[in-house]
Amino acid sequence: MKQKIIAITKEINIKMLKGISRKGSSLDMALVYALEVQGKRLRPLLFLSFIDAFNENGFDYKDYFDIACAIEYIHTYSLIHDDLPSMDNDDYRRGQPTVHKKFDPAIALLAGDTLLTLALEKIADSKIDNNKIVEIMKIITKSIGSLGMAGGQALDLGFSGKKEEIFNIHKMKTAELITAAILSAAEIIGMSKEKKDKVREAGILIGIAFQMADDLLDIEGDEKLVGKKLNKDIENDSPNSVYFYGKDFIKKEIENSYKKTIEIFNKLEINSDVFLYLIKKMVYRSK
Amino acid sequence: MKQKIIAITKEINIKMLKGISRKGSSLDMALVYALEVQGKRLRPLLFLSFIDAFNENGFDYKDYFDIACAIEYIHTYSLIHDDLPSMDNDDYRRGQPTVHKKFDPAIALLAGDTLLTLALEKIADSKIDNNKIVEIMKIITKSIGSLGMAGGQALDLGFSGKKEEIFNIHKMKTAELITAAILSAAEIIGMSKEKKDKVREAGILIGIAFQMADDLLDIEGDEKLVGKKLNKDIENDSPNSVYFYGKDFIKKEIENSYKKTIEIFNKLEINSDVFLYLIKKMVYRSK
Repeated sequence: MKQKIIAITKEINIKMLKGISRKGSSLDMALVYALEVQGKRLRPLLFLSFIDAFNENGFDYKDYFDIACAIEYIHTYSLIHDDLPSMDNDDYRRGQPTVHKKFDPAIALLAGDTLLTLALEKIADSKIDNNKIVEIMKIITKSIGSLGMAGGQALDLGFSGKKEEIFNIHKMKTAELITAAILSAAEIIGMSKEKKDKVREAGILIGIAFQMADDLLDIEGDEKLVGKKLNKDIENDSPNSVYFYGKDFIKKEIENSYKKTIEIFNKLEINSDVFLYLIKKMVYRSK
Repeated sequence: MKQKIIAITKEINIKMLKGISRKGSSLDMALVYALEVQGKRLRPLLFLSFIDAFNENGFDYKDYFDIACAIEYIHTYSLIHDDLPSMDNDDYRRGQPTVHKKFDPAIALLAGDTLLTLALEKIADSKIDNNKIVEIMKIITKSIGSLGMAGGQALDLGFSGKKEEIFNIHKMKTAELITAAILSAAEIIGMSKEKKDKVREAGILIGIAFQMADDLLDIEGDEKLVGKKLNKDIENDSPNSVYFYGKDFIKKEIENSYKKTIEIFNKLEINSDVFLYLIKKMVYRSK
């Protein structure tokens, strides 16, 4: 199974780079640089492996790499912008200098803008049915706008220290896009509205738990594996749930969310071992 | 006719603001601020008045305000990001403090990201036929990506002083989105591929001429009317065509482009006096 994940990840990496124009401008170089830095590719893997669970119904995940890449373009855009000096001011990401460190803040800003735009272009260009394209566009844009990722980042920046706000920030900033990745797959395989509601519930649960696991890593992770400096959250006044609720509470929450999530996916008969393995790795993380 | 333009502009302004969530966050406030600053609303006006030319064929421009607003969201996003300290570092825009001056660079960055996202969400949510939605998404995303607006801004930032590059930068940075606005209208009224190619040709011509007229304004405009400091281009090493080709040459170019554009639109029988008036105002500008 791990071999399969490695193989799909490799294909995602190749296809993402193929989508970038190569005219030799600094913008093109920044895009290539941002995409060549190795990431987990969690969101596209979730998307593709969810589809793969419906292989017997005639759905071949290989037909949907363009949308998988689009989702990772969006994630990469968000990392580039979040790292900028005016935001989290991070020098390293995934163990490499951040895009604005390697190039400059203006090019990093434009690289993020371009990746977001390219993601939406790739979705529009996808060969799937136009009705599904429009639905996926709705799912994804809603997940990253003012009520999703970008809104969550704004709340994160303005975090006032009220611990009640933390899980909502985690939901908006992190869980919404992860949920959108899974929901887009549910849309492709034609799930009923009722089932999609359950998928959304599970996605939000595991997405928040994923961010809680990230909060834990910021405190007790291995700096080499994590690929960035530890204790950044306390430095940045970021809403790290572990500072406010304690390790034991958060570990318990993660466990509960994981169990509930698996229960929902079991009921929906998402029997892809890759998908279920990824869900587990989201919350029991070393990086 | 001017009354009609004022009335439509008012409606664009109202509808753009209605699309913004109002939860009272600083991001929401920045979005409202950015959209309340009065602009010409040129791109949505071109889009709507082009559709209005086909009123007798059953196309009512009032059915397409959501897409009109989406186009202006994109333009506004580009202004917010272009004004940022790491880019052009402008303190004033349309006579008001820029978003990062009024709020801060992080919120301005996120406001731009959110407007781009919201634009595509609005297009996806539009009540028109899904096939047309997908085509419009393709037109618009291609016009603002690495081969369009964002790529043009990157070339602008890295402008090396080669005057041969200037018109390509103008095309990418300015003319592509203007063309996309008009082409989206052509898509809605169901123009043939051949006619759309002519529309594209005219859009690029008048879009570049519009930017040349902007270059002129930067040198001989009225600061109060323009709403920003003059001679910014020379300060920023921006590719201002007038510096490199001289006033007389550029004025002649503008005139030629305008004539050619009008010829094309006449052949296509775009008989909307509002549309033709806007085209004229694009090149004979006071602001």
